[in-house]
Amino acid sequence: MRKVILDVDTGIDDALAIAYASASPEIELLGVTTTYGMAPVDCSVRNTLLVLEHLKCDVPVFRGAETPLVRSREYSGAFHGEDGLGNTAGREPKRAAADMHAVDFIIAQAREHGRELTLVTTAPLTNLALAIRKAPDIVQRIGSVVTMGGAVATLGNATKFAEANIIIDPHAADLVFSSELPITLVGLDVTRKTLLRQEEVERWRVKNTPCSLFFAEFTEFYIQAYRKYHPYLKGCALHDPLAVGVAVHPELVQTIPMHIMVDLEADALGRTTEDLHRESPDKPTTQVCLTVDAERFVSRFLSRVDQAFSR
Amino acid sequence: MRKVILDVDTGIDDALAIAYASASPEIELLGVTTTYGMAPVDCSVRNTLLVLEHLKCDVPVFRGAETPLVRSREYSGAFHGEDGLGNTAGREPKRAAADMHAVDFIIAQAREHGRELTLVTTAPLTNLALAIRKAPDIVQRIGSVVTMGGAVATLGNATKFAEANIIIDPHAADLVFSSELPITLVGLDVTRKTLLRQEEVERWRVKNTPCSLFFAEFTEFYIQAYRKYHPYLKGCALHDPLAVGVAVHPELVQTIPMHIMVDLEADALGRTTEDLHRESPDKPTTQVCLTVDAERFVSRFLSRVDQAFSR
Repeated sequence: MRKVILDVDTGIDDALAIAYASASPEIELLGVTTTYGMAPVDCSVRNTLLVLEHLKCDVPVFRGAETPLVRSREYSGAFHGEDGLGNTAGREPKRAAADMHAVDFIIAQAREHGRELTLVTTAPLTNLALAIRKAPDIVQRIGSVVTMGGAVATLGNATKFAEANIIIDPHAADLVFSSELPITLVGLDVTRKTLLRQEEVERWRVKNTPCSLFFAEFTEFYIQAYRKYHPYLKGCALHDPLAVGVAVHPELVQTIPMHIMVDLEADALGRTTEDLHRESPDKPTTQVCLTVDAERFVSRFLSRVDQAFSR
Repeated sequence: MRKVILDVDTGIDDALAIAYASASPEIELLGVTTTYGMAPVDCSVRNTLLVLEHLKCDVPVFRGAETPLVRSREYSGAFHGEDGLGNTAGREPKRAAADMHAVDFIIAQAREHGRELTLVTTAPLTNLALAIRKAPDIVQRIGSVVTMGGAVATLGNATKFAEANIIIDPHAADLVFSSELPITLVGLDVTRKTLLRQEEVERWRVKNTPCSLFFAEFTEFYIQAYRKYHPYLKGCALHDPLAVGVAVHPELVQTIPMHIMVDLEADALGRTTEDLHRESPDKPTTQVCLTVDAERFVSRFLSRVDQAFSR
């Protein structure tokens, strides 16, 4: 069983990733750290707590970074709604976030569990970048990082160059990829191949539990946004859940080792590409996912969240 | 034995590719078609004839396109010299090009040999694009196309977005990649990993045949250009020879299937990336090379050109 921290900006597909992780027996979920992203950090915290409440999952939630390292952040509700959860959150969660800061939780768990710890990030990489700057020793401690982010051989989604998690805080991403952390990069190259179709979400409605209805409502918001902005896709992409999937079942993807850099120039801000200038170490510590067994992944995801919705 | 046409813009690494192909018993070289590229087409023709003369190889040479489909072309001698061959060509070849146009030769061979034909391109894709427009039936006939071009997951060399062969005629490249030709794309992703070091070229000098000295002289020009412009590489990249290598030994590379598009907008002209909007066919006919067994390739290349230089 892997000890896992999820670092999220919940966010609709973050919510699906949390559901998937919470129902995976291969995962011991130590905590969920949050940050800004699709919505401000306070929305992420509230959404994460609400989602866990519906999942009857009492792991602690930690509030993290409010802004990118260097840039500023404006929010758009196009894909995730104004509140980050399809404008469906509506009420306040019963629980509150823990007192500890997300960055300190990551550092403490890295020092306690070392190689047993897997950090799955589905948000801008600000929390992890801050943790590395505050406690550089964690780079050599953490067992593995699985990051939803980037678009290496494919078009971006925020711009034609950049994926959203990366462009929101490109400096944090570049800092993380320049470290020697053992990262598996789960980018649009693979996540855009893993689609959730409307008919699956309708099954959640038929299932008719409070949890399945809660998830169906905001997931339909997401599917409708996809229909509007990416009409060539036949559903919504399971970006964040795939990062959980790869953490548990690495055989779902084919990877190649690569030094990754983030373009910090204005003309291609946030582009993730091979870093040609890296002198050392000779061996890249980042594995870039380039193909995925999408059918097997989606089927596993659906079966696991179905269990999560039954609790 | 594969029936092969080489489509070149000789060019220093084209010359190395010709030497490699001419000494490969797996290849029956039907002819060499030429185009503009690093130098005007008349330079390419002359250089190709001179190179074949030194190699004691009498395959026919065909003059092809003079300009890109849509754009204009200016020449720079930075990597290949003003004459395309390190300013070493100096004299005229004994033979002349055949009367047939390169495009017609490609079409005729495609119709005669069908699936047995492999087209290896190491130049802008203008000749092939013209052949497709003139004789669309060849798309279903040609057995395979191995193309040196593009930079899918890595930085370009002409700009940070684009590889030279693609940006010189992006419209031709887009036309070719949009066809259903069975293409193996040998881009900078792999070619920049295959390096020829100065010490190997010094062995050609020690070998001291007219052919080995001829090749050593212009290859050293190329290595010096690499030292100036790409000091982080430890030699010059064997871009074009790798396309020949992949045609003969496909097991040298790992590929993934992908629909490829060429960015035709000014801000990222010539960028090769996954085409998300392609509706049909469902299965991509392009295989993108992403990893290469560089050591094995370079060793095979060196051993074959050593034989070529001994004739």
